[in-house]
Amino acid sequence: MSSQPSTSLESDAFEAFCAVRSATEALTAGLSAEDCQIQSMPDASPAKWHLAHTSWFFETFLLLPLMPEYQAFDPAYTVLFNSYYVGVGERFARPQRGLLTRPSLDQVIAYRHHVDAAMAKLIASVSPGKWRDLVELGLHHEQQHQELILMDIQHAFSLNPLQPAYRDNTPDRVASDAVTWVQVPGGLGEIGHDGSGFSFDNEGPRHRVWTEPFEIADRLVTAGAYLEFIAAGGYATAELWLSDGWATVEAESWTAPLYWQDTADGWTRFSLDGRVAVDPSEPVMHLSYYEADAFARWAGARLPTEAEWEIAARHALLREVDDLAWQWTASPYVGYPGFAAAAGAVGEYNGKFMVNQFVLRGGSLATPAGHTRLTYRNFFPPAARWAFSGIRLARCS
Amino acid sequence: MSSQPSTSLESDAFEAFCAVRSATEALTAGLSAEDCQIQSMPDASPAKWHLAHTSWFFETFLLLPLMPEYQAFDPAYTVLFNSYYVGVGERFARPQRGLLTRPSLDQVIAYRHHVDAAMAKLIASVSPGKWRDLVELGLHHEQQHQELILMDIQHAFSLNPLQPAYRDNTPDRVASDAVTWVQVPGGLGEIGHDGSGFSFDNEGPRHRVWTEPFEIADRLVTAGAYLEFIAAGGYATAELWLSDGWATVEAESWTAPLYWQDTADGWTRFSLDGRVAVDPSEPVMHLSYYEADAFARWAGARLPTEAEWEIAARHALLREVDDLAWQWTASPYVGYPGFAAAAGAVGEYNGKFMVNQFVLRGGSLATPAGHTRLTYRNFFPPAARWAFSGIRLARCS
Amino acid sequence: MSSQPSTSLESDAFEAFCAVRSATEALTAGLSAEDCQIQSMPDASPAKWHLAHTSWFFETFLLLPLMPEYQAFDPAYTVLFNSYYVGVGERFARPQRGLLTRPSLDQVIAYRHHVDAAMAKLIASVSPGKWRDLVELGLHHEQQHQELILMDIQHAFSLNPLQPAYRDNTPDRVASDAVTWVQVPGGLGEIGHDGSGFSFDNEGPRHRVWTEPFEIADRLVTAGAYLEFIAAGGYATAELWLSDGWATVEAESWTAPLYWQDTADGWTRFSLDGRVAVDPSEPVMHLSYYEADAFARWAGARLPTEAEWEIAARHALLREVDDLAWQWTASPYVGYPGFAAAAGAVGEYNGKFMVNQFVLRGGSLATPAGHTRLTYRNFFPPAARWAFSGIRLARCS
Amino acid sequence: MSSQPSTSLESDAFEAFCAVRSATEALTAGLSAEDCQIQSMPDASPAKWHLAHTSWFFETFLLLPLMPEYQAFDPAYTVLFNSYYVGVGERFARPQRGLLTRPSLDQVIAYRHHVDAAMAKLIASVSPGKWRDLVELGLHHEQQHQELILMDIQHAFSLNPLQPAYRDNTPDRVASDAVTWVQVPGGLGEIGHDGSGFSFDNEGPRHRVWTEPFEIADRLVTAGAYLEFIAAGGYATAELWLSDGWATVEAESWTAPLYWQDTADGWTRFSLDGRVAVDPSEPVMHLSYYEADAFARWAGARLPTEAEWEIAARHALLREVDDLAWQWTASPYVGYPGFAAAAGAVGEYNGKFMVNQFVLRGGSLATPAGHTRLTYRNFFPPAARWAFSGIRLARCS
Repeated sequence: MSSQPSTSLESDAFEAFCAVRSATEALTAGLSAEDCQIQSMPDASPAKWHLAHTSWFFETFLLLPLMPEYQAFDPAYTVLFNSYYVGVGERFARPQRGLLTRPSLDQVIAYRHHVDAAMAKLIASVSPGKWRDLVELGLHHEQQHQELILMDIQHAFSLNPLQPAYRDNTPDRVASDAVTWVQVPGGLGEIGHDGSGFSFDNEGPRHRVWTEPFEIADRLVTAGAYLEFIAAGGYATAELWLSDGWATVEAESWTAPLYWQDTADGWTRFSLDGRVAVDPSEPVMHLSYYEADAFARWAGARLPTEAEWEIAARHALLREVDDLAWQWTASPYVGYPGFAAAAGAVGEYNGKFMVNQFVLRGGSLATPAGHTRLTYRNFFPPAARWAFSGIRLARCS
Repeated sequence: MSSQPSTSLESDAFEAFCAVRSATEALTAGLSAEDCQIQSMPDASPAKWHLAHTSWFFETFLLLPLMPEYQAFDPAYTVLFNSYYVGVGERFARPQRGLLTRPSLDQVIAYRHHVDAAMAKLIASVSPGKWRDLVELGLHHEQQHQELILMDIQHAFSLNPLQPAYRDNTPDRVASDAVTWVQVPGGLGEIGHDGSGFSFDNEGPRHRVWTEPFEIADRLVTAGAYLEFIAAGGYATAELWLSDGWATVEAESWTAPLYWQDTADGWTRFSLDGRVAVDPSEPVMHLSYYEADAFARWAGARLPTEAEWEIAARHALLREVDDLAWQWTASPYVGYPGFAAAAGAVGEYNGKFMVNQFVLRGGSLATPAGHTRLTYRNFFPPAARWAFSGIRLARCS
Repeated sequence: MSSQPSTSLESDAFEAFCAVRSATEALTAGLSAEDCQIQSMPDASPAKWHLAHTSWFFETFLLLPLMPEYQAFDPAYTVLFNSYYVGVGERFARPQRGLLTRPSLDQVIAYRHHVDAAMAKLIASVSPGKWRDLVELGLHHEQQHQELILMDIQHAFSLNPLQPAYRDNTPDRVASDAVTWVQVPGGLGEIGHDGSGFSFDNEGPRHRVWTEPFEIADRLVTAGAYLEFIAAGGYATAELWLSDGWATVEAESWTAPLYWQDTADGWTRFSLDGRVAVDPSEPVMHLSYYEADAFARWAGARLPTEAEWEIAARHALLREVDDLAWQWTASPYVGYPGFAAAAGAVGEYNGKFMVNQFVLRGGSLATPAGHTRLTYRNFFPPAARWAFSGIRLARCS
Repeated sequence: MSSQPSTSLESDAFEAFCAVRSATEALTAGLSAEDCQIQSMPDASPAKWHLAHTSWFFETFLLLPLMPEYQAFDPAYTVLFNSYYVGVGERFARPQRGLLTRPSLDQVIAYRHHVDAAMAKLIASVSPGKWRDLVELGLHHEQQHQELILMDIQHAFSLNPLQPAYRDNTPDRVASDAVTWVQVPGGLGEIGHDGSGFSFDNEGPRHRVWTEPFEIADRLVTAGAYLEFIAAGGYATAELWLSDGWATVEAESWTAPLYWQDTADGWTRFSLDGRVAVDPSEPVMHLSYYEADAFARWAGARLPTEAEWEIAARHALLREVDDLAWQWTASPYVGYPGFAAAAGAVGEYNGKFMVNQFVLRGGSLATPAGHTRLTYRNFFPPAARWAFSGIRLARCS
């Protein structure tokens, strides 16, 4: 990128910008143009779309408003790569994202570099007060899409009978030790982001919350424990399930987590490494809220609320916090007391999804390092399973 | 009913039993066998089914377990009139309830009287400790179905081009005065039922909850205020809506509350009295959570949480609490801290619906007198509109 | 009925009118108002609707145009009981016919008698040239609905777990003897109605058609023969089926004719007499075109074309022609050469259904005596099974 | 390709083989790997799939059975690229063909060349009697897929807001002159293929058929004539349509042929050349059977039967026979008298689709030169519009 910013603040910002941007491209470096083209279900998006949409963010919210001389790479991209920002105008129908063979992956990469070059100029020439917060938001937004790229490509590859692996250099498997139950006293506490440093709007305002004493597991539920639930007939026992959960189990014929298969050689799961054996000592993943809730009931426990999770995490009582699997909480995703969405299209970011979803806390093996915080609120509908979602148990003291 | 109970306690119980049971039949007295036959959508049930199912409750949970000599009216009814009690065995598919022309309405009424007579004997001859709680639960359960009968028949009649009225003796229209905002200080409070007297399982346990100071409207939103929202383009402004709400508005082509029509002579609404003019001074009803939430946003306010609602109501700060329209709260329907479903089939009552629904508080013009409490938690999915559901606003202080 | 017609022609016409009209009411005499209310699937209609719609025909096409003094029983019925006559105006949505609890069955019967009385006057007072053809059409139309009443009530009752019987006085079972193959020489022949006496528009014009020599079974395929097809894995052998047929078998999980169940005591079928044992010697019924076609392929035969059927029937070579089960032909339902729909709403009768259906020939145990002719063309979509539809085989010589 | 066949017969066969195979690749030469990846609707297939499936045909029906030494390029392709040949084993679900990013386009091209090389050896070394008919069938099969590639890519590109053109070298536009009605006497004639030279199984057997005298248009209906139908309210006049056609018009909101848009600058249509103006003198295309039938009724004419079409074409009475647009006939697609599907998987070719489709005759601008014959029977469901389908009118004399 040509224009190098001069001062330290700008230099740091530009370095951070380049780091995140190149990390995204690194994720798709091993994928073909065809791999990046497809959309395997309405909830997923093509990798090419993720690459373009994250660039669209910087073009739409920074370059076009702040740099009068900026030439859009292609005005049509404004519609093509908008996601849900209704305020910014017409969107291309989400379920048809996989049909956009044009622009090509090469053109989208060129678009990225066009935006990167312009961002370098912007950072070097425009007053930081005008862009600092939005650049930071844009980078955190892009990191979210980094995880989505992995979720979506794993899902797409899982449907290919050839069962291709996303990567060759498989990382070491992670074993989750036996669980220790941690006691937490309860009382009047505080949760939510206090505003120092970056956070998404939905993490605040920080607010007081009352909790009763509780116990929480220091580690995640393992595949081995989940196999016991399966063996005990968990998927065939209506009493363990929420009513909507049971209806989903029946409609979708669920008998195990997403990607699992019961083969002649034992249970396997499809992963970024292709199809591999289920290791009983690894954390179970790719579960819906319904499954997490039913498992907890079967285990004589429950899911923690997000307040309980955050209080326990803040007191450093938990292990496997954000490096293995997101953890479903018992908390429906709603705004905190005093929450108000920011004005303008950027304000559409989180608020309008505050219905029909549950909060997950922590982070996963697919989350970019440093992306999450203890106040971070991820969320998915209760039937969603393609996230790297697992279980941490809680129970009343 | 032949066997009259002798002691005062039993006598009171029997009187209460008879009062609720006959109230149900009074609700359907003006309906034909055909009216009682049909099911106008999967969420609704035929009046005949309500009449039978409420009797099934007493037969299944009281007569069969407690009276060895009891002869079931018809063993087949066990399957036909079970609703969602999975533990009690096979259920007749809910969307096909409207297809049960046999048994006839006359037979179902005979079934009711058969159960009533046996219940009289049971109350007179079995130790109250064995039946008191279950009878009380059964009567409250039946009162819930009394309101459902009215909801369902209004919905069914609304689809008939003849637009028949359910009743002739229209009660006086109720006007809702101008709203006064009431200040509530917040702090550590308690909500939920304390266990003295009857409550449903989902109303407890009573527990501490922290609230910030807030303001709440003493009265409900009127049809007139809602007409302003419509006139201001509320149904065409995506920014006012939750994402799922907007998708529903578009998919269902919503432009007004359920049952409303914009005619040459002004707005009308279909009601138990047939089609009548919308009176701007009456509370608006038949709204989804999505509409209540969007209206609140447009009005610069929000919906109250159920804790806020209950605290304000407990302090007698509210008017129009339970006699006009249920009030959507901002609270998703989940179990209170420490909630655990009761064991057995009766325990399926409320717990398994604790997902994908929102809590409504108060009561409506269709709720039997004395049925609700300040701790009462009604709930419906956010898109449901056939309940008598309205809006009470709140805002941060 | 008050006004008796005087002359012989009018007297005969009135007698025929009364005979058909009362036969319809006789069919529903044993049904309750509730039985007559329901619609068990979109293709079916409530018996009450059939009773009303057949009266609507006489009111709409005869009384209103020809008798200026006629007072409609209720003007709203024009919309409620129109079926598919788009030319006559707005129709009530077909899938919601089961929701019309008002008018009641009693009112519909009163409507029938109102129309009957007026028709008596019309026949007595208006010149026969104005009504003769339309009355004849109306009566044949009503006879079609007589068979539909039986089809629809059997379907509705079949879904009731109580499995009620439509009638008590079960007629004798009919056994179909061993089949004899009849040789027919082929050549230039004629089929279709020649215009003498009543026929539906789709039966003409009579026209020449060339057929090659063929053989045709003198009797229908028996349940016993069909059981062999089932036992041989017919429903699990894709090669036997048309592509759309196989897709339907899989989507609907078909393993036997409609209404059949494989019980511990052998195969049973639901019928107008309730659930009865399958008699191997009786003709198989309640088959789709797909099943008839697959069975024929399995049996080394094929279905006859409608030309072959009619030529063979005209030469009196067939038995079990019209008294047991309609016979699927290999002929898609299209207009004969030179066919043109009659002008006006009555002309909508048959022409617009000439796509996506197959012709059935003959008649069934549910067809009113004297209703059909050798040129009669019944038709249903290839997946329909609730008609009394069976199989007659053919093969090339 | 290495092994050149030596004799003239083999040399001719190999030349024909190479010509068709390379023509397929020429069609996709201008498409990117991404363009070849996608499937825009369940009825369509990716170009990559077409490239692979046509090779699979030669591998499955020729190389594997006839050349013991043949090494399959990849055994997994047997499942991946089977289409509807149930007899050959498990098929990859049709609607998911667009998800196969692996194998890549490059690998599929390599697969093609692997098969081509092996076919060269087979033709050079195996007795022609063993392969001649199957090679011929495979090449005609591949030509069918050549037209499908164009249909499918046009459909896919039409959904891209960028509206990309498939080709730059737009051929000259074709104008259809004024129509002349040709009289044909009728009588006993013959249609169908007589077995000399190649034909698909569904074109025979040749058989006698009786036709009445008729008139047929020597040219196709123009876009200009169709615009008159639109302007006259054709799409809003229920009386013009078959019942299922009208239901489709309403459900799909049809107001013009597929790909047409009514813009400020007049009517445009999406085509292989991108979006272009509708030329009133060109033949109208991309119509369903329902539209062709409704237009004919509006024009006071009808569609020809396939017998009429073939007889007129055989007498050289028609122009624009096979070079512009396929012509819907009034004939449902069924087997000719005496038709029997060939044994084995190849026999699944045409017979099992003989339901719920109509025959189209002729050929289109997208049909490979020399592919069709006067006996050729194309077929599509009556609602399909993405073929290059137009109208030729007929009427009774």
